[in-house]
Amino acid sequence: MGREGMGLYDRMNGIGAHEVIIETPDHALALANLPPKHLEDILWAYRDRMVDLKRDFRLRFILIFKNHGAAAGATLEHTHSQLIALPIVPTNVAAEIEGCRSHYLQKERCIYCDIIRQELSERTRIVADNPEFLVVTPFAPRFPFEMWILPKRHSAYFEESQKTQFELLARILSESLRRLDRALSEPAFNFILHTSPLHEKTGDFYHWHIEVIPKLTQVAGFEWGTGFYINPVTPEESAKFLRDVEI
Amino acid sequence: MGREGMGLYDRMNGIGAHEVIIETPDHALALANLPPKHLEDILWAYRDRMVDLKRDFRLRFILIFKNHGAAAGATLEHTHSQLIALPIVPTNVAAEIEGCRSHYLQKERCIYCDIIRQELSERTRIVADNPEFLVVTPFAPRFPFEMWILPKRHSAYFEESQKTQFELLARILSESLRRLDRALSEPAFNFILHTSPLHEKTGDFYHWHIEVIPKLTQVAGFEWGTGFYINPVTPEESAKFLRDVEI
Repeated sequence: MGREGMGLYDRMNGIGAHEVIIETPDHALALANLPPKHLEDILWAYRDRMVDLKRDFRLRFILIFKNHGAAAGATLEHTHSQLIALPIVPTNVAAEIEGCRSHYLQKERCIYCDIIRQELSERTRIVADNPEFLVVTPFAPRFPFEMWILPKRHSAYFEESQKTQFELLARILSESLRRLDRALSEPAFNFILHTSPLHEKTGDFYHWHIEVIPKLTQVAGFEWGTGFYINPVTPEESAKFLRDVEI
Repeated sequence: MGREGMGLYDRMNGIGAHEVIIETPDHALALANLPPKHLEDILWAYRDRMVDLKRDFRLRFILIFKNHGAAAGATLEHTHSQLIALPIVPTNVAAEIEGCRSHYLQKERCIYCDIIRQELSERTRIVADNPEFLVVTPFAPRFPFEMWILPKRHSAYFEESQKTQFELLARILSESLRRLDRALSEPAFNFILHTSPLHEKTGDFYHWHIEVIPKLTQVAGFEWGTGFYINPVTPEESAKFLRDVEI
């Protein structure tokens, strides 16, 4: 007997998409070495594929991410990012959305807008800043040198970004990755685009952003057992180190 | 300004305990090489420390786990396990408990008791079996060769196990780790004791157990972005391989 008839366990349909975005034809280059103008084209490719795929109403969420380096799970050396479209809203995404909704219900404000305001006033966790984006080490980072790239304009949907945002996102993403490379000698890292589930009205309280996770520590028994993360470096130290490095 | 005055972010008190259980004085031995009788003493040490620490009512949860090998996050070579007592119930534990409670509310049965019944009838995911314990590869494993060690007697609290259970748990844990070593050439692994939060009435619906996670694949962008796990090996294949290996 296969998985049919397993009364205990739920099923979902098998619809989805998995696309690989090859970031450059040059095998020797990494994302951080590409000119910002080239990065901008990659971001447009993310957006164009999302806009196209979201016409399929069976898809509920589109994940865009990059694994760089073997320790971050990259199995191909040639620099690339990936798009996976899913027929359900993933657990972690649902939890993040719920957290934002609950903050909004209490305060009538978006939590990421609050974070941006607070980080700009504290100034101790800023890595990079431009008119459209802010890069910070989050107040409670799971990992050393974790970075969040936050759009200053409130929007739940990455794919609805303005043209000028793509240009400034490309510049600050390039700067952030070069800072990471210089500060930590080209570490393995993941980045993950956090954006709203498709066809859901999250516009008031959700705020798309990118999370960058360098792979410097191992996820071990404590993390698996709790969902909490042991991080030996304060975000203020991480931010200062990334900010001060010469690029 | 430090973390004080950060209105956005919650605080908890700093009470806790972190203890290291040194499993043998012999630096050259691994847990899988120790005689079952010796493993039994280690399990009694877990239990005795839990019974002692739970007298402190400020502690809400005791996590016992083992990191074996650098890829599993072990930073000390000498074989050891760890106990961390926390003043809150961790996210992952709360989610597991909630899942069990919800199954119980629907069916008036413990989900782990249901799983044991189903696995004993299917017999395709069994790794080892004795009168008190069943070792299976779970139906939806996150990782290749993930194993769950399930007590056949329903109980939410590891520390309330019967004396005879310690003996049979030591034997089956030893067997499982030796199967893993032989099947996969001594891989890095974590094991985590899942047991009820302290001072909570979970007795009807929760069921303590041990989860063993070999470290063979990298957690990458897809996993971080979704909370879902890509696993290229079916649990039936993993179980057969572990079951058939000569130990």
